[in-house]
Amino acid sequence: MLGAIDHIGVAVEDLDEAVHLYRDKLGMAEQHREMVEEQGVDAVLLEIGDGHVELLSPLAPDTAVGRFLERHGPGMHHVAYRIDDIEAALEQVRKAGLRLIDEEPRNGIRGSRVAFVHPKDTDGVLTELVQPSEGP
Amino acid sequence: MLGAIDHIGVAVEDLDEAVHLYRDKLGMAEQHREMVEEQGVDAVLLEIGDGHVELLSPLAPDTAVGRFLERHGPGMHHVAYRIDDIEAALEQVRKAGLRLIDEEPRNGIRGSRVAFVHPKDTDGVLTELVQPSEGP
Repeated sequence: MLGAIDHIGVAVEDLDEAVHLYRDKLGMAEQHREMVEEQGVDAVLLEIGDGHVELLSPLAPDTAVGRFLERHGPGMHHVAYRIDDIEAALEQVRKAGLRLIDEEPRNGIRGSRVAFVHPKDTDGVLTELVQPSEGP
Repeated sequence: MLGAIDHIGVAVEDLDEAVHLYRDKLGMAEQHREMVEEQGVDAVLLEIGDGHVELLSPLAPDTAVGRFLERHGPGMHHVAYRIDDIEAALEQVRKAGLRLIDEEPRNGIRGSRVAFVHPKDTDGVLTELVQPSEGP
């Protein structure tokens, strides 16, 4: 069902500092920067193999990432698995008895369609399913 | 420097339950099971694309993963990036001014050589460098 690890999402307090770390110190290429209003974040994708590190800075304190930072400080926020067909994947997840945060896919970064599985059903790991955009 | 996301490490309280989740509900193939004494864990690797999910169950409460579970409960513990040459990678990490938990590589799962970068220098993300074994 799940194709590959698409990215890890990292909650950060200072996006530019974090880009500096991953790009200049760890040597990943900066690939994309986007404000994803639907998720309440300013996000940067850096390239690593055929996957990404997604740096997430909250647009406001009362967003999912803002609350995460408040509770935990900066760190790994979620893992995302790449899939071809998000509707089919959601159906399989439902059949497996796992609860979804998003019953319907929503808009993710770079035209992707995404949905989150509830971490209570995945051993505390916030798990995203991501169907990349077919566009260029 | 870093080749790809090799795996995410997930701290779990019940290894068999976690294998059931990832194998039977999320559909990843179970690939390897090993007690890694040097890291104080019982570990299971599941296949996802050319990477893995590494489930980690502590061998005792006073291990790194045992303390993590005590403080945070189950969840994402670390991310590991694949590299060809761990000595060269450690040298680059040092030159970039990042502190290491392991100044020298140590034994990881399946004959790999691994070292951890200090999360204080990586925005709270415990980051592992892993040079896979060359053997079959």
